[in-house]
Amino acid sequence: MGLDLTVDAVQLTEDLVNIESVSGNEREIADAVENALAGLDHLRVQRFGNTVVARTEQGRDERVVIAGHIDTVPLNANLPARKDEQSIHGLGTCDMKGGVAIALRIAATLPNPNRDVTFLFYDGEEVEAERNGLFLLSQTDPDLLEADFAILMEPSDAVVEAGCQGTLRADVITRGERAHSARSWTGVNAIHGAAEVLTRLNAYEPRRPVIDGLEYHEGLNAVFVSGGVAGNVLPDECRVSVNYRFAPDRSEDEAIAHVREVFDGFEVEISDSAPAAMPGLSVPAAAAFVEAVGGTANPKFGWTDVARFSALGIPAVNFGPGDPHLAHKQDEFVPIDHIDEVEKRLRAWLEDEA
Amino acid sequence: MGLDLTVDAVQLTEDLVNIESVSGNEREIADAVENALAGLDHLRVQRFGNTVVARTEQGRDERVVIAGHIDTVPLNANLPARKDEQSIHGLGTCDMKGGVAIALRIAATLPNPNRDVTFLFYDGEEVEAERNGLFLLSQTDPDLLEADFAILMEPSDAVVEAGCQGTLRADVITRGERAHSARSWTGVNAIHGAAEVLTRLNAYEPRRPVIDGLEYHEGLNAVFVSGGVAGNVLPDECRVSVNYRFAPDRSEDEAIAHVREVFDGFEVEISDSAPAAMPGLSVPAAAAFVEAVGGTANPKFGWTDVARFSALGIPAVNFGPGDPHLAHKQDEFVPIDHIDEVEKRLRAWLEDEA
Repeated sequence: MGLDLTVDAVQLTEDLVNIESVSGNEREIADAVENALAGLDHLRVQRFGNTVVARTEQGRDERVVIAGHIDTVPLNANLPARKDEQSIHGLGTCDMKGGVAIALRIAATLPNPNRDVTFLFYDGEEVEAERNGLFLLSQTDPDLLEADFAILMEPSDAVVEAGCQGTLRADVITRGERAHSARSWTGVNAIHGAAEVLTRLNAYEPRRPVIDGLEYHEGLNAVFVSGGVAGNVLPDECRVSVNYRFAPDRSEDEAIAHVREVFDGFEVEISDSAPAAMPGLSVPAAAAFVEAVGGTANPKFGWTDVARFSALGIPAVNFGPGDPHLAHKQDEFVPIDHIDEVEKRLRAWLEDEA
Repeated sequence: MGLDLTVDAVQLTEDLVNIESVSGNEREIADAVENALAGLDHLRVQRFGNTVVARTEQGRDERVVIAGHIDTVPLNANLPARKDEQSIHGLGTCDMKGGVAIALRIAATLPNPNRDVTFLFYDGEEVEAERNGLFLLSQTDPDLLEADFAILMEPSDAVVEAGCQGTLRADVITRGERAHSARSWTGVNAIHGAAEVLTRLNAYEPRRPVIDGLEYHEGLNAVFVSGGVAGNVLPDECRVSVNYRFAPDRSEDEAIAHVREVFDGFEVEISDSAPAAMPGLSVPAAAAFVEAVGGTANPKFGWTDVARFSALGIPAVNFGPGDPHLAHKQDEFVPIDHIDEVEKRLRAWLEDEA
């Protein structure tokens, strides 16, 4: 199936949604994107697995990355796309084929942008990091990601969301000694030992640091708790799994140290973590972008791939159509006016005399 | 396979162990018991499912029940029986074919006891109450259980263990409101809400009431805890499953009320309960029995079927060979000197001029 890049971004969103591309099944949509862009003289198109990179090479002083993932979460009886007067509904409309459609339209119709642009259409974002096309490219061809600034077109309500908070998961473990519950004084109850862990979580005061004028909001929460052997046995282990969301002024190492400090005296096993991304709004390119697209920026609380650019030293923001709270929901949709607004703002910024 | 009741109780234990009788598979052993007893003129033998009842009817003033279950927990590569100089090893040696062998020997060899005896050999003790032969008999033929006193030949280290503590299981539930863990202030964490539940468990002071001279020892313990939806979601429910073991001076209703009081302010769901049994050592028949078999009685902390007799108003004790801590263990065994000692004591008590 081919993609026609001469249709408007709303129609293009619908066309992209109707190419099913659940993670692991991105070949068809990557082929369509590659073929549609390959015919354009002003772009240099390269393919890496099911990730497509298209670059303008006008020799501008500045280069910007515009990126979007082409995969979706699993089907949930929500295809094909359905359009009404306000919105397009269906799998991937919000997360994030609306943003991908805008990027494709701009790639196709702005042959001479005021900044060089690297368009990235990548696979495997909705699954483990090892399958993420952007991550893989950062490992194999980091040169291709070089830029002064990056825009990730994840849904952000058509307003810039800057940086992102980091995330860390850890198990806080208490141990005891098994015994028959009819003779409980002969054992040590590990679940009872977790009282202090939960008490510390209850008393925890999350930081709300202001960075580049944006107020982030941390959180430290139990997301799972488990323990128990049998209905008549004192449990010898209890695990409280906590998720720490940390503001961009903290590194992963600092976040780990913080969690260990909060649970000082307990056994702590770090499960996984991903770094935060600084909003970078003090960087001229980023500040100019926010100014150009409306002057407003909000902090991003959740984790997104902007952190991968941040790790490469590239300031990055989220800016795309759709309500981020609808991502991964069966009834996700993207408002048509978001698509129009984001495309107009982005186009104007790339057409301005910079 | 037949059973020869002229062999001694040690040999008979070994023979019984070698008739595999995992719960649900008691037909063969029940047949063997029934057939072995049916030929004895001094006993009236009745069969109910795989439960065998054998009664002397000498018109004595007093009647005593001597009971044992004939089923075992599942096979665990621990058959056939193996005998060494001190013990018999294998599935059901301790729990409780040693006790059953003694009861069968006494049934066969004491045609004219000083008290009438109702021997009960019942199935389904190691599984749910609805399959317990003693429970079923108490529902269908309670007259057959009528007695002044009951001896349950469960392993008790060859010393009388009197009464038993009750057991009650309940879930203490906290509720919250789901939210993405990156925006935790928009939700309510149900696991954090369980801190107070665990704190109360930690602070709990169990009672140790003295009843008929025996010190019982209660306990209130979390046996399971669970909660959690996903690694990035605030959980909206947490369950702490608690097990309350209560002394025989408390009824089930009082135990339920106590647990509700301890967790006042929380949602409490009662899962199941079983009543305690009073030691009943102030009843002359019981006191005389303790005196006759050695003068010592210990409190029983775990729950046993003595509670079923207690519920019928019949004082009951545990008195059998074997260490109760070995019950349900792969390497269970019964000491030969326990078998000899318990048989000798019981026989003497039934032969005395009462």
